Amino acid sequence: MSEADTKITTRVRYAETDKMGVAYNSHYLVWFELGRAALMREKGVPYTEVEKEGYFLPISRFNCRIASPARYDEELVIRARVSDLRSRSVTFGYGIERDGTRLAEGETSHICVGEDGRPVSMPSWLVERLKTRS
Amino acid sequence: MSEADTKITTRVRYAETDKMGVAYNSHYLVWFELGRAALMREKGVPYTEVEKEGYFLPISRFNCRIASPARYDEELVIRARVSDLRSRSVTFGYGIERDGTRLAEGETSHICVGEDGRPVSMPSWLVERLKTRS
Amino acid sequence: MSEADTKITTRVRYAETDKMGVAYNSHYLVWFELGRAALMREKGVPYTEVEKEGYFLPISRFNCRIASPARYDEELVIRARVSDLRSRSVTFGYGIERDGTRLAEGETSHICVGEDGRPVSMPSWLVERLKTRS
Amino acid sequence: MSEADTKITTRVRYAETDKMGVAYNSHYLVWFELGRAALMREKGVPYTEVEKEGYFLPISRFNCRIASPARYDEELVIRARVSDLRSRSVTFGYGIERDGTRLAEGETSHICVGEDGRPVSMPSWLVERLKTRS
Repeated sequence: MSEADTKITTRVRYAETDKMGVAYNSHYLVWFELGRAALMREKGVPYTEVEKEGYFLPISRFNCRIASPARYDEELVIRARVSDLRSRSVTFGYGIERDGTRLAEGETSHICVGEDGRPVSMPSWLVERLKTRS
Repeated sequence: MSEADTKITTRVRYAETDKMGVAYNSHYLVWFELGRAALMREKGVPYTEVEKEGYFLPISRFNCRIASPARYDEELVIRARVSDLRSRSVTFGYGIERDGTRLAEGETSHICVGEDGRPVSMPSWLVERLKTRS
Repeated sequence: MSEADTKITTRVRYAETDKMGVAYNSHYLVWFELGRAALMREKGVPYTEVEKEGYFLPISRFNCRIASPARYDEELVIRARVSDLRSRSVTFGYGIERDGTRLAEGETSHICVGEDGRPVSMPSWLVERLKTRS
Repeated sequence: MSEADTKITTRVRYAETDKMGVAYNSHYLVWFELGRAALMREKGVPYTEVEKEGYFLPISRFNCRIASPARYDEELVIRARVSDLRSRSVTFGYGIERDGTRLAEGETSHICVGEDGRPVSMPSWLVERLKTRS
């Protein structure tokens, strides 16, 4: 993660907390989604456009390490970048910070499928855009 | 609500709690969904079948009164019934109980739309099934 | 709802959509939460502060009418205001718009409870703040 | 994963689907929670009891590989087992199947914290129970 990564902020919603008083674990994946969507928009390939062209990027693998919990109403900074790019898959890396402190980091890997749900190579216009330094 | 209503049980998930230590409000709507799905299955029109035939039942209105909060790991009994049935819409009524105590009740009203998202009359096979006493 | 209402914007998350291709119904309540939190912050009583003082505002009733579905990546404007204020409860009214078109509106009613979960009168500092025109 | 693992079933909720027509990725973590809760109950240490004793098991790491998507209304079998146990942390392994076909697998690692949120060693009664073959 570097200063050059795409950044987006979000506040922790009450709906995202659990009875332990912190954010429930599954929401880190939703925050990763926000970072990924911002990154793709910044690279000129908003995910809505990708789907309009008949391509979808379902997640095939994800992982996350949580160093410190996020809490209600905290403003989180989500950083995202492309960490691996292949003809048929792409991996995004993420960092989540609060006031400059890293709370969590992780990755999601995505395959590319067509409208019938079958794996396909990513179209060249998508690959080229994902390759650009945002 | 009566003993004749369709019943289904679910346990409150940790993911459904919030930092107040009780179930977050939006999950009551998800529990209503479980009751509605069980009711439609029992009436012989599982919602998956309705969609396979090209009909969808999005919610146009919902309401809920919560008398007492649901808590983590509690086993909830969800009751559902058809409370109003018209040619182009249907309303379901719900009750949520724990150990015989009513925690919440509410209603959801649904319009019927086709694959293009436009409102249509419900097909007769669906209306007839929804009319049956489950 | 009027121009004077507190406004906050949010984008529909992929996580909030369902297989019908639109936002799943329960998320309207989460968007209401965002409007309510913004309103309370603007009135000088951020909900985090209310809880720090030992008061909680669980929902006792909610309702919503959905005129038109919200879709992935759309920017929603959420408006919120206090619509009814009593010594032991408060009702908030909400509107959700996209590009000036009203998609949905609704209300949530909240009781005030202390740390033991028992209903109490709202403290005067909270009532006074909620009374102000934001 | 083996036949000896604790098993629990759940149906995919409409609320858990997304506009791609399959289950959204974050819900796999919630299904892992269901498996973990069932496993702990079977081992004689329901998670509610652990919290009543003043111990909490927040997630510090998680990962998941999704081989094939889960879809609305499908009945999933969730298997869970303890895959690593240390004095201050525990890792659970999970498998999610539909009709005998493995859809996904993953792990969650948990630290043990006290009521003040600080890491502590797990109490011996908890460790002993987690060690048993369920």
